[in-house]
Amino acid sequence: MAIKVHGSRISTCVGRVIACLEEKGVEYEVVPVDYVTSEHKQQPFLSLNPFGQVPAFEDGDLTLFESRAITRYVSRKYKDIGTDLLRLNNLAESAIVDAWMEAEAHQFNGPMKVLIYQFFIRPFHHLALEEQEVETNSEKLGKVLEIYEERLSKYKYLAGDYFTLADLHHIPFIFYLFKTPKAYLITSRPHVNAWWNDISSRPSSIKISEGFDKENSFLKGNQ
Amino acid sequence: MAIKVHGSRISTCVGRVIACLEEKGVEYEVVPVDYVTSEHKQQPFLSLNPFGQVPAFEDGDLTLFESRAITRYVSRKYKDIGTDLLRLNNLAESAIVDAWMEAEAHQFNGPMKVLIYQFFIRPFHHLALEEQEVETNSEKLGKVLEIYEERLSKYKYLAGDYFTLADLHHIPFIFYLFKTPKAYLITSRPHVNAWWNDISSRPSSIKISEGFDKENSFLKGNQ
Repeated sequence: MAIKVHGSRISTCVGRVIACLEEKGVEYEVVPVDYVTSEHKQQPFLSLNPFGQVPAFEDGDLTLFESRAITRYVSRKYKDIGTDLLRLNNLAESAIVDAWMEAEAHQFNGPMKVLIYQFFIRPFHHLALEEQEVETNSEKLGKVLEIYEERLSKYKYLAGDYFTLADLHHIPFIFYLFKTPKAYLITSRPHVNAWWNDISSRPSSIKISEGFDKENSFLKGNQ
Repeated sequence: MAIKVHGSRISTCVGRVIACLEEKGVEYEVVPVDYVTSEHKQQPFLSLNPFGQVPAFEDGDLTLFESRAITRYVSRKYKDIGTDLLRLNNLAESAIVDAWMEAEAHQFNGPMKVLIYQFFIRPFHHLALEEQEVETNSEKLGKVLEIYEERLSKYKYLAGDYFTLADLHHIPFIFYLFKTPKAYLITSRPHVNAWWNDISSRPSSIKISEGFDKENSFLKGNQ
């Protein structure tokens, strides 16, 4: 039975999981969730993800939620095929991958989520942009990316000279950032920009980017 | 050379790392950081943690940052001694540990951080409580804990019938929550409360709780 990813391809969290499955070359099926009827806030979806969010994930009898836990599972299960995304054969390397994965989750993700909310979710609900929120969080994100710039001046990727989950987890949000007036936060930093050009041109990234553009009603009027 | 944890024992993120080291029975040294002179925002601290936050961690030549990456490293390095915190011998079990670790990071941590900021950091800086922020985030935290209540009605701990990092990562923040008027968010939920009584009475938890109380100037005037 193929792996099932429940959720729409427009979701950045679903994108994170799909990019990982593509890096591993594993077969999977995307099971659409109807947001209009809030299918994800009701049973049977809640038995897959009690927090009522996409994605939910099924591999045989195992059900999982939280995109970053799902990518870890896929990377561990298919450790020896496709891209080595966690460097599990080396304790120190895998620890550094984890540190930069946590940087994504606890430094980058916060301000990035606010920008996505401001540029895509609010307009979708016919709400105006909150300028102060945009500026505060652009500044926060800029400070994080300044640290990335320094790191990427020494290494090709965040965890070292190899592409890992620490890089992959950033990809969906940055695709969306490029559809806002804040893309310069990436392009104005030479090493961050080179890193982005590299990671966004991977076949797995192109796959999720096409998914965003194909289904994405949020993007209308925001480009 | 013993493991070094840089940061004060009053920090919840430092507490997370210490609790993990205590569960493993590993020797370590806590290296104080002088917040008054912003030692953590300058070199040489920034070479240990480029984000200028505590903790930073050293184990021989390896330096790490982000508390949840450090606890993963310690749990992997000392996989076969002390408490089995990641269930790495079973792929499905370890995936479920990861899912609940991510729930802590992406569901529980957000509203909890705001409450800590409101009840401890603002008074420390002689700033008034923002009632609306407290109420909004108490409500958010309550919704998350409602899902925990359901989970803990079926299992003794979040990831199953065994204590793991998924539980441990919650401990420092809940100790602080109990020093605020919002402790009822835990005590009013029977299964969450029983879980808290269990996990907070572990020797590793008592160790970090004593560290909070001993050094904690934030707590004065908040009890």
